[in-house]
Amino acid sequence: MSKTHYQYDVIVIGAGHAGTEAALTSARMGAKTALLTMNCDTIGQLSCNPAIGGVAKGQIVREIDALGGEMGKLIDATGIQFRMLNSGKGPAMWSPRAQADKKAYQFLMKLRVEEQENLTIRQEMVESLIIEGTPVPEGAPQPEPEDCPRITGVLVRGGAEYRAQAVIITTGTFLQAIMHTGEAKTKGGRAGEGTTGTMSDSFRELGFQLERFKTGTPARLNGRTIDYSQLEIQPGDENPQPFSFMTEKIEQEQIPCWLTATNQHVHDVIKANLHRAPMYSGQISSTGPRYCPSVEDKVVRFADKSSHQIFLEPEGRNTLEIYCNGISTSLPRDVQDEMVRSIAGLENAEIMRYGYAVEYDFAPPTQLFATLETKRVGGLYFAGQINGTTGYEEAAGQGLIAGVNAVLKIANKEPFILDRSQAYLGVLIDDLVTKGVDEPYRMFTSRAEYRLLLRQDNADRRLTPIGQQLGLADAERCAQFQQYETQIQTALTLLAKLRHQGNSLEEWLRRPEIEWPQLCEFSSELANVEMSERAKQQVQIEVKYSGYVKRQQQDIERQKKSLSLRIPVTFDYRAVPQLRNEAKDKFSRVKPADIAQAGRISGITPADLAILTLYLHEPGRMSQKTTGA
Amino acid sequence: MSKTHYQYDVIVIGAGHAGTEAALTSARMGAKTALLTMNCDTIGQLSCNPAIGGVAKGQIVREIDALGGEMGKLIDATGIQFRMLNSGKGPAMWSPRAQADKKAYQFLMKLRVEEQENLTIRQEMVESLIIEGTPVPEGAPQPEPEDCPRITGVLVRGGAEYRAQAVIITTGTFLQAIMHTGEAKTKGGRAGEGTTGTMSDSFRELGFQLERFKTGTPARLNGRTIDYSQLEIQPGDENPQPFSFMTEKIEQEQIPCWLTATNQHVHDVIKANLHRAPMYSGQISSTGPRYCPSVEDKVVRFADKSSHQIFLEPEGRNTLEIYCNGISTSLPRDVQDEMVRSIAGLENAEIMRYGYAVEYDFAPPTQLFATLETKRVGGLYFAGQINGTTGYEEAAGQGLIAGVNAVLKIANKEPFILDRSQAYLGVLIDDLVTKGVDEPYRMFTSRAEYRLLLRQDNADRRLTPIGQQLGLADAERCAQFQQYETQIQTALTLLAKLRHQGNSLEEWLRRPEIEWPQLCEFSSELANVEMSERAKQQVQIEVKYSGYVKRQQQDIERQKKSLSLRIPVTFDYRAVPQLRNEAKDKFSRVKPADIAQAGRISGITPADLAILTLYLHEPGRMSQKTTGA
Repeated sequence: MSKTHYQYDVIVIGAGHAGTEAALTSARMGAKTALLTMNCDTIGQLSCNPAIGGVAKGQIVREIDALGGEMGKLIDATGIQFRMLNSGKGPAMWSPRAQADKKAYQFLMKLRVEEQENLTIRQEMVESLIIEGTPVPEGAPQPEPEDCPRITGVLVRGGAEYRAQAVIITTGTFLQAIMHTGEAKTKGGRAGEGTTGTMSDSFRELGFQLERFKTGTPARLNGRTIDYSQLEIQPGDENPQPFSFMTEKIEQEQIPCWLTATNQHVHDVIKANLHRAPMYSGQISSTGPRYCPSVEDKVVRFADKSSHQIFLEPEGRNTLEIYCNGISTSLPRDVQDEMVRSIAGLENAEIMRYGYAVEYDFAPPTQLFATLETKRVGGLYFAGQINGTTGYEEAAGQGLIAGVNAVLKIANKEPFILDRSQAYLGVLIDDLVTKGVDEPYRMFTSRAEYRLLLRQDNADRRLTPIGQQLGLADAERCAQFQQYETQIQTALTLLAKLRHQGNSLEEWLRRPEIEWPQLCEFSSELANVEMSERAKQQVQIEVKYSGYVKRQQQDIERQKKSLSLRIPVTFDYRAVPQLRNEAKDKFSRVKPADIAQAGRISGITPADLAILTLYLHEPGRMSQKTTGA
Repeated sequence: MSKTHYQYDVIVIGAGHAGTEAALTSARMGAKTALLTMNCDTIGQLSCNPAIGGVAKGQIVREIDALGGEMGKLIDATGIQFRMLNSGKGPAMWSPRAQADKKAYQFLMKLRVEEQENLTIRQEMVESLIIEGTPVPEGAPQPEPEDCPRITGVLVRGGAEYRAQAVIITTGTFLQAIMHTGEAKTKGGRAGEGTTGTMSDSFRELGFQLERFKTGTPARLNGRTIDYSQLEIQPGDENPQPFSFMTEKIEQEQIPCWLTATNQHVHDVIKANLHRAPMYSGQISSTGPRYCPSVEDKVVRFADKSSHQIFLEPEGRNTLEIYCNGISTSLPRDVQDEMVRSIAGLENAEIMRYGYAVEYDFAPPTQLFATLETKRVGGLYFAGQINGTTGYEEAAGQGLIAGVNAVLKIANKEPFILDRSQAYLGVLIDDLVTKGVDEPYRMFTSRAEYRLLLRQDNADRRLTPIGQQLGLADAERCAQFQQYETQIQTALTLLAKLRHQGNSLEEWLRRPEIEWPQLCEFSSELANVEMSERAKQQVQIEVKYSGYVKRQQQDIERQKKSLSLRIPVTFDYRAVPQLRNEAKDKFSRVKPADIAQAGRISGITPADLAILTLYLHEPGRMSQKTTGA
């Protein structure tokens, strides 16, 4: 009996936030794509908190949207509460965040993938990868790309083969997953669901190094049993702002979240039971997300605090289920019961699902190129939590980037790599593949060198032209963007030209107290220009921040220039003690003409380049200092 | 460490159609109830076809609703297409059926249980039952109720105990479940989900006999890939009728289903691959639902037919997924691919989920009393597919009956048993506990002796007063019913009193060609009576069918009378050769005064009574005949 097989260009394994964006991207760029999921009913599921965006993450959603991805449109359509975080600070800090109707979001993503031309959705359990060539054993040195084996497909339970030139793996927390609630352990990547049986073995056989991370989720409560009269209400913004550049306006009614807090008694209960917490009993030894700690972590790490905030977030419009943001835990159920009963407003609250921690395999992302293609297997891409990240937004962004690059590779086109100065997505992937991760990686604005440039308001101006080139941004988006950009340029020209009391309007606008309406009083010509509110807003930001922005752009230029720094052909790399042996070997062999060429050598890291650059500038300096980049 | 435990009055295991109705019923009757489910996200899931009702099943939904259950209201709120089947025939045959928006239905049921006072919903994996007393080994004779062990709770994964006086088991197809697609076997009760690990062992230890059934489900298609231009459209009714007596009107827009059919080529493909069908290869030996056969069964059993109808049913308003009603199959995936590609309109259709068969444990329902309490363990109830039934409606009905009886037992009240003349639910449960099942049991109108009485239109008149007594029908329902009933009685009195051309209006109405409007022309007094359309309709049916109805009621009276048939105290039961030895023993010991008392003896079946009655009437007759009831 010949094996059943199906032929695609690109196969995506997993249909969470990374997998759906990867599959949509690939299909939209014209590749015949298969999206394989363990369960069609959990496509796009928000496994943990029912929210999208937040500080730095909101910017990522805007970037995904600007490129032509789906996440922003989905949260706009299914959000139940929208807030612009940091709106009191400068525009570089503004970060959109919204609560989602969890099930509405999930099933709208399912609909979007169903509707997508070129995209086949199939409920399958993938068991192993099929490759051509000899796998390089784990621990063996990184082979040259031409010596790598390459992926030809995957084998699914039941024995069928899916064949393709590129495979994108987005298995989330499902690799060798174990869930912990106190002493109780259960196999599975999400409560009530299974695990991806044999995939980890398949990766190990291909020489991939796998490590363990853990993450956690809090209890969910039945809202019927909460005493809301004791809670502080947290409404959404009065003028909710959409995530997607394609959404005109958020029309739906918003519903509030609620605030309560832990107290000393709750902390005492936790402390008294720490020996039963898997993280402290030694039952879990893997690392969890530092910036999204469990409540037991908080009580230990911030021992002087007697209270931590808890946001009670509705999971949707048509459910009473409530997510307890702030008290993620893997303590045993009886401790969870007592904790909840000791919190104001939750005295009679009923837990519907207990919190738990989940341990899972991830593949340290230094095993990837910046395209998210793996270094060990050609055509094999990793995206999302398998790369050691946390967060829906980080996952979705990686999915999109992997999707683009898989299609470009098949078409023998140049890879798509965003620079750190272009996008948070560039920062994210550069951090991952260059530095690796020693805890679940979450995006922060502080990770970006050029965060004045990487604003949520200008994500389209940074990325939509690229989305258009890639064939990912659709015609409607491109046309709308063109009109917006034209309005901005017209306005900027006018502002430079028009004068009032001897100064240009541009100079006026740079003053903190001057806003658009006053400029229009100064000039009827400006007042008569047809401009959307968003375009006016953009012009104001550009003009008011132009000083800072220019400085950052100069930094970028300077850095780019350093890439053209020439290296004498006689340069002795072995005389640079701080260089890694691998770098010395490769540089000596290749003898690059400049830093840019040196950087393109496979296996060379930004740190190697930084050392080399520094040494070329001041050969003497390095002998006193031993730090690299 | 003392075990965590929770105390309830009633615990329901499983939150499908049986479990949710059981839990709602129990909580509404005032019992503190826990509903334990493997996954809160699959509460109320329509595992197979996205439809509620149909012939005989629609009547059951109306009965569940009349008693105060939820199913009718849910399908009214989430239906996408409503049809009154058999509307061309007499009213006894009318059967409502509707397509559901599968996910909307499921999540509305989740909301309903969340909202329910007295009801705790908890995501838990139940591992075993906790009993007090000594289990009776499998195969040992049925002990007297007072000698039975009794349930005290259940143990869940993680080690916590839920304690209660009554436990209702509604595990559906999840007991020791194995799914088959061709040669491929996977553990699990529904694709993408798990199985209930150790529950079957727990039942066996308590002496329960378990057997295997199988059922199946067809492939689901992506509607985007269907060529609808080749299909026949099937719209809903122009004037859609609600299921619930509490729903005024179906307001939502309906969407069509589509018709196609198998053909000779499809049949040839199936025949050529029969050896790979688990039912034919011997890989599955258990029995499936005869009246819901797989397509391979149809092709074998109806070898002369060259075509079978396929209904393509949308799974919801916000998905393109399509259910292929009529081609349930466990053939291997490559055969499913070829089958689908060979059907008109589906030439390019993509399968999203392959069809499969599932084998699961059920407990032959002769191990139950008519309350659905098990005979071996006091306080333990079984409802739904675990009793060998098939169908959402049959499951929901059993859930409701088990819920009522669990609460009544705890309160030391008389059990609630519906008679075969009162409801399809009475027929269903009497069939199950009396005759047992040798294939998955599905309701048919032909199973009811008194189906002229058991109409969908009068389910409220039969059952709402009972629902009221039980405290299950809420005040609004009771008030509305009272008003309706008053209108009917007023009208019936008037029809008997008012005359036209020498005949009463009642006599006029009995004529087939006379309808309400004509009667109103005959009498302005009647025309001025305030009556709902439904009340008018009901009066017409009652009057037009009164002859038949009376005859059936006389039959029932006659049967009831036979129950008062006295038995001489000297009667020699051992001289009735057709009686089972157990019956002879028990009758001889108890010496019942009449047939009714004989029937109340534990272990005595309706067949025993029928034999005894016949023998008491005509002692000579039995020697020539050997058939029982």
